[in-house]
Amino acid sequence: MSLPQEVQVINVGLSRFADAVRDQGVEVLDVDWRIPAGGDAELVAVLGRLYGLHSRAIDEANREVVRRLDEAVPVLVEVAPAAGVIPGLGERAVLHPGPPLDWEDFCDPLRRSVRAAVMAEGWASTLEEAERFVAQGNVQLEPANHHATVVPMATALTPSAPVFVVENPQGGNRAYSPLNQGPGKVAWFGVEQPEAIDRLRWLRDVAAPVLSATLQGVGPVDLFSIAAQGLQMGDDGHMRTQAATNLFVRHLLPSLVGLEDPRRVEVARFLSANHLFFLNLGMAAAKAVADWASEVAGSSVVIGMARNGTTFGIRLGSMSDRRRSRSQAAWFVAAAPAVGDALYYSGFGPEVGAPDIGDSAVLELVGLGGAAAAASPAIASFLGGSMSKAIAATDEMDRICVSPSSRFKLPFLDFRGSPLGIDVRKVVELEIAPAINTGILHASEGVGQVGAGVARAPLDCFKQALLALDEFYH
Amino acid sequence: MSLPQEVQVINVGLSRFADAVRDQGVEVLDVDWRIPAGGDAELVAVLGRLYGLHSRAIDEANREVVRRLDEAVPVLVEVAPAAGVIPGLGERAVLHPGPPLDWEDFCDPLRRSVRAAVMAEGWASTLEEAERFVAQGNVQLEPANHHATVVPMATALTPSAPVFVVENPQGGNRAYSPLNQGPGKVAWFGVEQPEAIDRLRWLRDVAAPVLSATLQGVGPVDLFSIAAQGLQMGDDGHMRTQAATNLFVRHLLPSLVGLEDPRRVEVARFLSANHLFFLNLGMAAAKAVADWASEVAGSSVVIGMARNGTTFGIRLGSMSDRRRSRSQAAWFVAAAPAVGDALYYSGFGPEVGAPDIGDSAVLELVGLGGAAAAASPAIASFLGGSMSKAIAATDEMDRICVSPSSRFKLPFLDFRGSPLGIDVRKVVELEIAPAINTGILHASEGVGQVGAGVARAPLDCFKQALLALDEFYH
Repeated sequence: MSLPQEVQVINVGLSRFADAVRDQGVEVLDVDWRIPAGGDAELVAVLGRLYGLHSRAIDEANREVVRRLDEAVPVLVEVAPAAGVIPGLGERAVLHPGPPLDWEDFCDPLRRSVRAAVMAEGWASTLEEAERFVAQGNVQLEPANHHATVVPMATALTPSAPVFVVENPQGGNRAYSPLNQGPGKVAWFGVEQPEAIDRLRWLRDVAAPVLSATLQGVGPVDLFSIAAQGLQMGDDGHMRTQAATNLFVRHLLPSLVGLEDPRRVEVARFLSANHLFFLNLGMAAAKAVADWASEVAGSSVVIGMARNGTTFGIRLGSMSDRRRSRSQAAWFVAAAPAVGDALYYSGFGPEVGAPDIGDSAVLELVGLGGAAAAASPAIASFLGGSMSKAIAATDEMDRICVSPSSRFKLPFLDFRGSPLGIDVRKVVELEIAPAINTGILHASEGVGQVGAGVARAPLDCFKQALLALDEFYH
Repeated sequence: MSLPQEVQVINVGLSRFADAVRDQGVEVLDVDWRIPAGGDAELVAVLGRLYGLHSRAIDEANREVVRRLDEAVPVLVEVAPAAGVIPGLGERAVLHPGPPLDWEDFCDPLRRSVRAAVMAEGWASTLEEAERFVAQGNVQLEPANHHATVVPMATALTPSAPVFVVENPQGGNRAYSPLNQGPGKVAWFGVEQPEAIDRLRWLRDVAAPVLSATLQGVGPVDLFSIAAQGLQMGDDGHMRTQAATNLFVRHLLPSLVGLEDPRRVEVARFLSANHLFFLNLGMAAAKAVADWASEVAGSSVVIGMARNGTTFGIRLGSMSDRRRSRSQAAWFVAAAPAVGDALYYSGFGPEVGAPDIGDSAVLELVGLGGAAAAASPAIASFLGGSMSKAIAATDEMDRICVSPSSRFKLPFLDFRGSPLGIDVRKVVELEIAPAINTGILHASEGVGQVGAGVARAPLDCFKQALLALDEFYH
């Protein structure tokens, strides 16, 4: 018997072996196979059950979750003070991003933002007073997520602050988000200087009434339709919302221009200079559909993902047959990660970047942000400048998601739908953590945003969620 | 001697031969080589001279032309009645698109547009009167291009109509275009119904003064900067200008909103509903840089390209050493082509489409429109729905252009510059005609736009231009 003259190799797993063969001039077909769950015996057993015995029930639940994420049409209906519209909001409530957290554990930018909000609310007249006021337990610190609300970056939301009210007619539920505070020295970037406090008051006293009157002349606004158009125009819908903001502003234009109120001019100037104005609108829309999806029991699809700058948490939907109150759903938390693949403003670098913060990761749950990286040349610039990297980022999200979005289309991928429905089973099996396109705040000096990049959700949250799901099915 | 066991084939030229070999299971490497200029002996000889003996002079001229096309920064400075700003405009001038043409040869949509403009101007009170007024020689029909002006589709421009004034500080020249008339029953689409005439009057009496006041509060606007951003947001800058329009509107917003004039509301409504508002601005900017480039003598780069629905014409720059008046430059004309790769509105088809019309092809000269097809998912839908077709369209333009634009970047091609400077030598040698992204009007019934598609410039114009350039160098 003689050796064959030609060799063709199929390599399964580590590419190092393939490289060695390839170096000898032999063709190699790579199969990217990894030991599931990094070889953790308990997780492998759990995956065996959740992909095996329980797969039919889980897949069915997932289909319904994804249907809700995909089909609901959330609409902006009004702008109003938080106190008047957010259910169960206490008189001294301060809503913060991410999972629940004690004041002692709040990160620096979020502490500053809370103090600024307390000042704007009139509960204190100096930052020192504000600090004491909070430290002495005079406010109720609660996750915004527990009140059908989402807040971006280090936003702290108090009762008099205005919010967008977003309705999901299909689900009969509502969700809320504050008005975006704009660029510069602003509290949502962890700044507590007088300008930041003034901006909060201006949003409440000037922007909110003008926008409220403007919206009355416009009627309900289909937010995901605008976000979907944005994806055809270079937005990822999270880090970049410029196209959607322009479309939204154009939609408001005739009504805004028609107001008699002379303050319309200040508001127009603010809108004209704020590329991220749509961010908060997209978030509230995503929260509305995610909350509706969370009512489905026994799904492995993530319906909550948020960070407070200290911890990162995810949530699964209902784990019981009866409809549970959303605020009761468990958080699976881990330490908030640093933001990678980042570009920093001149003079700043990773050493001063705060850990990942904000509720905006709710966008990644509905097919925007990291899932839609391939839509956005702007995101490509964070990933080395080439669109192929942005496409690879979307492809990776595809591997851990249930199915493509039918409304968010990716032009660079010939209008394929963006990945929708992050499945904790796939995340744990493949050890691929969702990518979140996000801003970066200064960790300690209160100078605001210092950069932007891509954060990786901690795998540990997903492992905990997987174990809880396994328990639910036991 | 025995035949070799394996065959590899390199095929040069017609792919039919390669296909035959490929059908037998043999690998074939295609080299896309064609007989230059289709084998026309005279043209081959001319190409020999213009690529040989005269190549140094031509390449040097081309570099300067392309530098001007690439580096000039045209800015919008004001909105004013045509009569007050366009040089050499007669009291009874009617500027039309494309090369010079006798009234008898005007196509149906352009005739209607002229009659509507004559009515709006007050020179006639019925369409019949307007027809007689023109037919009896009471107006001076002149190409807009002869007055540093460009008009899209079937626009007819009369002295009282408002125009954008665009300044090119580097060249010390100005260019002009009318305000875009918007969608629907409008004269620039060949409609002469009362609504179309009312729209012309409204643009003059309402939109122009409001926009003029708005611009005073804004200062000069860098138009190509906006167009370049538009290319990052799905515009090709010709058939689709939605992103640029939104950016422009956002730029005007604070000033427009701040006007006391109550007519600001009508104008806001008009802007908000007109995706093509930026089209005319991009055209005037392109005309400003093309006119400056046209002063360079002895270049093979096209600096004028326009259609009147009957003929299609291109122009080269100065053919003498002294600076010639732009209006004197020769047109090289052929019959206007049909628009191909088209999508028609429901109920219409190619049989009712008018031939290619309008001065908007000036955009293709500066790297927009057909050259930037790869920027635009919307254009892809005209080319079969796949981005690869849009990319192929840009790649083809690349083969007949001098160099990539340094300001118009194509995100789908990893930010490569769009093709700039159409070289008549390459067009004739390769027999690749420039592609022009454009609308389609009804050929006979005055019902307006019936579709949109991609027109191919007639090769014969380029052959004539090549012969003229050869004569210049003799």
